[in-house]
Amino acid sequence: MNTIKFSNQFVGEKFNTQSKELEIPAKNALKSVIGKTCKGSEWTGWWHYPRNKGNAELQKIKSSLSKINVDYDCVVVIGIGGSYLGTKAVDSALRNGTHKEIFYCGHHLSSKDTRLVLEKLNNKKPLVCVVSKSGTTTEPAVAFRVIRHWLAENCPKDHASRVIAITDNEKGALRELAQKNNWLSFGIPDDVGGRFSVLTPVGTVPLLLAGFDVERLMQGAHDEFAKIEESLSDSSRSHPAVSYAASRFAVWNGGKRIEIMSIVEPSLHYLCEWWKQLYGESEGKNHQGLFPASLTFTTDLHSLGQYAQDGFRSLIETFLTFSIDTNAALNIPHSDDDLDGLNYLAGKSFDDVNEAAKRATLLAHFDGEVPCMELSFPKLSEESLGQFFAFHETACSISALLLDVNPFDQPGVEDYKKNLFALMGKPGFESLSAEIKQRLNP
Amino acid sequence: MNTIKFSNQFVGEKFNTQSKELEIPAKNALKSVIGKTCKGSEWTGWWHYPRNKGNAELQKIKSSLSKINVDYDCVVVIGIGGSYLGTKAVDSALRNGTHKEIFYCGHHLSSKDTRLVLEKLNNKKPLVCVVSKSGTTTEPAVAFRVIRHWLAENCPKDHASRVIAITDNEKGALRELAQKNNWLSFGIPDDVGGRFSVLTPVGTVPLLLAGFDVERLMQGAHDEFAKIEESLSDSSRSHPAVSYAASRFAVWNGGKRIEIMSIVEPSLHYLCEWWKQLYGESEGKNHQGLFPASLTFTTDLHSLGQYAQDGFRSLIETFLTFSIDTNAALNIPHSDDDLDGLNYLAGKSFDDVNEAAKRATLLAHFDGEVPCMELSFPKLSEESLGQFFAFHETACSISALLLDVNPFDQPGVEDYKKNLFALMGKPGFESLSAEIKQRLNP
Repeated sequence: MNTIKFSNQFVGEKFNTQSKELEIPAKNALKSVIGKTCKGSEWTGWWHYPRNKGNAELQKIKSSLSKINVDYDCVVVIGIGGSYLGTKAVDSALRNGTHKEIFYCGHHLSSKDTRLVLEKLNNKKPLVCVVSKSGTTTEPAVAFRVIRHWLAENCPKDHASRVIAITDNEKGALRELAQKNNWLSFGIPDDVGGRFSVLTPVGTVPLLLAGFDVERLMQGAHDEFAKIEESLSDSSRSHPAVSYAASRFAVWNGGKRIEIMSIVEPSLHYLCEWWKQLYGESEGKNHQGLFPASLTFTTDLHSLGQYAQDGFRSLIETFLTFSIDTNAALNIPHSDDDLDGLNYLAGKSFDDVNEAAKRATLLAHFDGEVPCMELSFPKLSEESLGQFFAFHETACSISALLLDVNPFDQPGVEDYKKNLFALMGKPGFESLSAEIKQRLNP
Repeated sequence: MNTIKFSNQFVGEKFNTQSKELEIPAKNALKSVIGKTCKGSEWTGWWHYPRNKGNAELQKIKSSLSKINVDYDCVVVIGIGGSYLGTKAVDSALRNGTHKEIFYCGHHLSSKDTRLVLEKLNNKKPLVCVVSKSGTTTEPAVAFRVIRHWLAENCPKDHASRVIAITDNEKGALRELAQKNNWLSFGIPDDVGGRFSVLTPVGTVPLLLAGFDVERLMQGAHDEFAKIEESLSDSSRSHPAVSYAASRFAVWNGGKRIEIMSIVEPSLHYLCEWWKQLYGESEGKNHQGLFPASLTFTTDLHSLGQYAQDGFRSLIETFLTFSIDTNAALNIPHSDDDLDGLNYLAGKSFDDVNEAAKRATLLAHFDGEVPCMELSFPKLSEESLGQFFAFHETACSISALLLDVNPFDQPGVEDYKKNLFALMGKPGFESLSAEIKQRLNP
């Protein structure tokens, strides 16, 4: 069974009823995405991407990568936001001993953290994927300058063969650099924004290089998009992505302002980070949108559990799980003295107790007036992660459209950049610079 | 200069004025902590802990640890919530090549993550610190069962010399186990709760074992507590911890519901996790309290930056920084072609640009109607982290008392535990078990 399950049994009767009613506008929002009549419709290339483009593209990418003629033992991904979060989400969730290590840089401006990556690269032979639509975003661009210096020094004979540029198909600084230096390169589609780009070369190239089964990732997404589309022709039922979007809108209308994505498996942390960017950047405009947060249980039951149970009541909670992989189970040992009183758990697996803790928490938080939803995916694999991405790209777009905002732009991220250019003395920002310095040090 | 600086210049004039007025009740709240007349006064042992107990205790601990007669190359910390977060915060912020590695387990119920720790322990010779007041908390107790089995198998000759119990002074399962097995042990004071316990043996023992300078940590906290106390005798000024607590209460009164702790250095992530537990668990009761969240910039400007700039306006933001360590600076290289247009940054350090990005973001978010505060500590070191802990333990207690809640209890964390015991078939929970199963599968 590879079905995604959604339940709003514990969202509360009031919200449950409203959700049902909101499934009709939610379906209409989805139809406007498919029909390219929605706000920001020029950015809907993510819809059914595997069928429309991704499957064919993947074969070409595999063919190109098979011609790489340098040895490599690790991958460096230089990128920020959507340019690395999808890759890192898959990497963190699925990594085992068979995968090549991936190092991440260019997603911050910390000397310390960048130095740490350089230390780890010592004696390594990396392939470097630099991911940037424009090539001029400050963080990845300055990190790429550093990494190019490192490559020139440490791999003098074949440094040009170790760089792979993932950037705009035709224009921009990185495209120009790639052409000039004869680097292998792949194009980012014009109609897919950064946070929706995990199935494009942005995610597929580094994941292939590290040894993940990207065909199955693509297949999982492909099949889920198909199911979502199919479900629209049946007015008697809704796909879980539609139900989830409708439920989110119902609780938003009811005055809730924070959504917590709760997981019980630490390796899913970066799936939540990906989810936070997707929803936060798509919905957080015009003073709207649920604030996306995540908690890792049972860890955070011992830190934010008290707040979730009885703090200010603005929370909703979505419990995200993937079916337990019983092959990896670790069992709780018996103890002869039983001084800790836990022999009633002996022989059970950690995961069984973990799953019970999830159900226990859901009920407790619901009883504490937190509307709770459940979102359950098949066993963790490339395929189910493909389903996960298709599910949330769809649900998030619907959800933002229900708020009547453009799901695909991010006008607010320009504001700090202007200030930064001014503060750092970028040519052309002189008058803003004087104004800002006066405000900061009056 | 080892002074903590607080600014609410960008909190907005309205909140700024209110904050000033609220400094008087904030000081009174602090006096009620010191005078032990506040709510939960039986838990105020954290106040001036280094002077009252910690300094002397530390010398005894060092003496005990110096008698350990087994070789070890790493430390395992088994604990959850306050039993590991302070240790991990210091460890993550200050670690360099001179420190022994610390592995953490017992803070979740994941088979996968527990197995990963066991894999990493392969061929290692650890000392194991098991940290639990009662010894019966499910997560650390089951992990400790697993680790004891590992020790018996992998260190058969000296396994008893490798366990250090940090637990109640007199009673409880772990105290009893320690006596029976003749383990080295240290006591957790009766008047200090888990989230306030980093300066007690809970934090000091594992940090000493890993090679951190705990004397300086203690000294930093000692000096800051002394400064806070001194400031109370001068009615013309307030310590930054008082001002911060007053400002938080002013924005709470003004309807804000989410506080974001924003950092620009990834290695401070676990300081924020410690901070989240401290405030979330202390304030999140009676349907009150700012929801504590954290963002790591510039990383998260490319994920939640849009939301912070223009999403639902319930946010306040506190920018936490430690003075830049210029010795560790990494400079941005010059590029002859300058295709990325970043030569205006060449020769500057990453950290300078990072600091400018922080100031740029603060102004942009303030202009987007987010009240912003700044909290600046001296250069990152054991000493400044001691100041950090003293500062926040004090400010958090004041802040919770202003909300008129007991800062030191956590009644809400029991609710899910009862459900868990019932679901897992713990003897004595049979009737709750039947009720819960009926609710989950009606």
